[in-house]
Amino acid sequence: MKKLINSVDTVLTESLDGFAAAHADILALGGGHKFIRRRSLKPGKVALISGGGSGHEPLHGGFVGHGMLDAACPGQVSTSPTPDQMVEAAAEVDTGAGCLFIVKNYEGDVMNFDMAAEMSEGIMQVVTNDDVAVEDSLYTTGRRGVAGTLVVEKIVGAAAEEGRGLAELKALGDRVNAATRSMGVALTSCTVPAAGRPTFDIGDNEMEFGVGIHGEPGRRRDALKSADEIADEICAAIAGDLGMRVNGNALLFVNGFGGTPSMELYLMYNSARKLFEKRGVTIVRSLVGSYVTSLDMAGCSITLSILDDETARLWNAPVHTAALRWGM
Amino acid sequence: MKKLINSVDTVLTESLDGFAAAHADILALGGGHKFIRRRSLKPGKVALISGGGSGHEPLHGGFVGHGMLDAACPGQVSTSPTPDQMVEAAAEVDTGAGCLFIVKNYEGDVMNFDMAAEMSEGIMQVVTNDDVAVEDSLYTTGRRGVAGTLVVEKIVGAAAEEGRGLAELKALGDRVNAATRSMGVALTSCTVPAAGRPTFDIGDNEMEFGVGIHGEPGRRRDALKSADEIADEICAAIAGDLGMRVNGNALLFVNGFGGTPSMELYLMYNSARKLFEKRGVTIVRSLVGSYVTSLDMAGCSITLSILDDETARLWNAPVHTAALRWGM
Repeated sequence: MKKLINSVDTVLTESLDGFAAAHADILALGGGHKFIRRRSLKPGKVALISGGGSGHEPLHGGFVGHGMLDAACPGQVSTSPTPDQMVEAAAEVDTGAGCLFIVKNYEGDVMNFDMAAEMSEGIMQVVTNDDVAVEDSLYTTGRRGVAGTLVVEKIVGAAAEEGRGLAELKALGDRVNAATRSMGVALTSCTVPAAGRPTFDIGDNEMEFGVGIHGEPGRRRDALKSADEIADEICAAIAGDLGMRVNGNALLFVNGFGGTPSMELYLMYNSARKLFEKRGVTIVRSLVGSYVTSLDMAGCSITLSILDDETARLWNAPVHTAALRWGM
Repeated sequence: MKKLINSVDTVLTESLDGFAAAHADILALGGGHKFIRRRSLKPGKVALISGGGSGHEPLHGGFVGHGMLDAACPGQVSTSPTPDQMVEAAAEVDTGAGCLFIVKNYEGDVMNFDMAAEMSEGIMQVVTNDDVAVEDSLYTTGRRGVAGTLVVEKIVGAAAEEGRGLAELKALGDRVNAATRSMGVALTSCTVPAAGRPTFDIGDNEMEFGVGIHGEPGRRRDALKSADEIADEICAAIAGDLGMRVNGNALLFVNGFGGTPSMELYLMYNSARKLFEKRGVTIVRSLVGSYVTSLDMAGCSITLSILDDETARLWNAPVHTAALRWGM
């Protein structure tokens, strides 16, 4: 294992210390290293809280700040955060209007956020499940919540900043999740520091098609294909799943898993954009970069989110976080 | 070689097409794929132009836009752009106040930018050479220009936006370059698409200490050390080179080479920040991310740039590019 670390036991806390020091104008750590919280809370605003296993950075801590999350709870790598993390975060960032938990659909995450919701008051939840690759998987019953979670956090975060109520934000989150679909492909495995070896073996000419963000299996192992062929199959899967909704305006988000350079991500964006446009979608918003990662895994996912006038406007609303920033 | 591409011959043009489509509000391609230009030029502003071999994205195309570059000329991967690219870019983005070329100190780049400067009128140049690792290297006489180039482009770009003249911007660029030092370490090699195999061989427990951004050799091949030990040696090299200037306020920039996850970059930032603070530097600006890359190479560089009140203010000035954006 080749990593820039001091000890596998302190990777997460040392990284969080650096993160908090680098972005002290935006955020702070809470409860030791239990959560990352927005530095300036906005009284009367519904608090948005997310979290999950670490290793997907900048998701979720990189999205704490104005216009997105109020707190993020990091578990150990590929391990759900514990309920006390969310309970303490909610107690600290709830300014009286309640909290919305945004949870990726993984069994551990769902269970622990549920327990935290029961132990607190004034909590509602949105569970994201945008991955069309497989119905059930290693860590999940039903579809996995993957890169589309960023889209939910951005759009609901903008609406929360405008002062909307908890039930309305929950409904908006569910609506964005239902309009958002993703699928990914891995060319190499990630290596979890505590494990010290690759999560899965993969041949020199193979790809894992439909991979999850923990390196868990997808639809099939296949020979590595061209970018156009990969994009074609992913876009067809997404479009087929969305069915009649594939028209009008959309956000196209090409997400790197960590080990793939920006040059390849833009090349995949170029392929995917043409394919969706041929199917009658107009790409009005774009995001290309490594935002929902799997440590050092090479590969990418493609996310399409169908937008209406309101969600397109909310996507553009000002945001000031470590990883996404515009309009301020 | 495992890459998301269609053909090694079309990697660059397809990637540039995707890049231009994703950021059409900020930039456009010029002369086919000869340069990336800012969409809206500002009459009377000195035009800033940079460029170099591709594979270091987002450098330089990702820095085209308000408050940074007016044009960037991409060569093939690890290959300098040709003089006609810079000549055409200058002709298109010069609105009458002249052009400043910002050039990383590599022999091919320096030669081709020099030729372009001779073929055009009203050109001045800043050559960056922030890498303290080695005095001469595979592609370079003297020090290499590496991640510190971003700092020069940001600060000079902000000053150009304020309407300063060509000679003043050239002097500012030279001043920022002289206050900026970098050094990097690689854990794995990059793989250039046209070569199809790793640029260099490296053992499972080795690192290349002082590596260049093309994967060219650094100070020595060594056993992989802890993050703190690596940071300590890099910070000592930077501080030793800056000498008496290591005090007061500074920007600390931890740059990923492409294959290293954000978790490790923030951990390195944490180590480096403490080390510089012990030496009497106050870190007042921070940047952590993969901005000056070497395709999929794992590793990072550390850059320290000593700031005065003016350069600290210019770093914070509004910028709107694909890769750096704040204040607007």
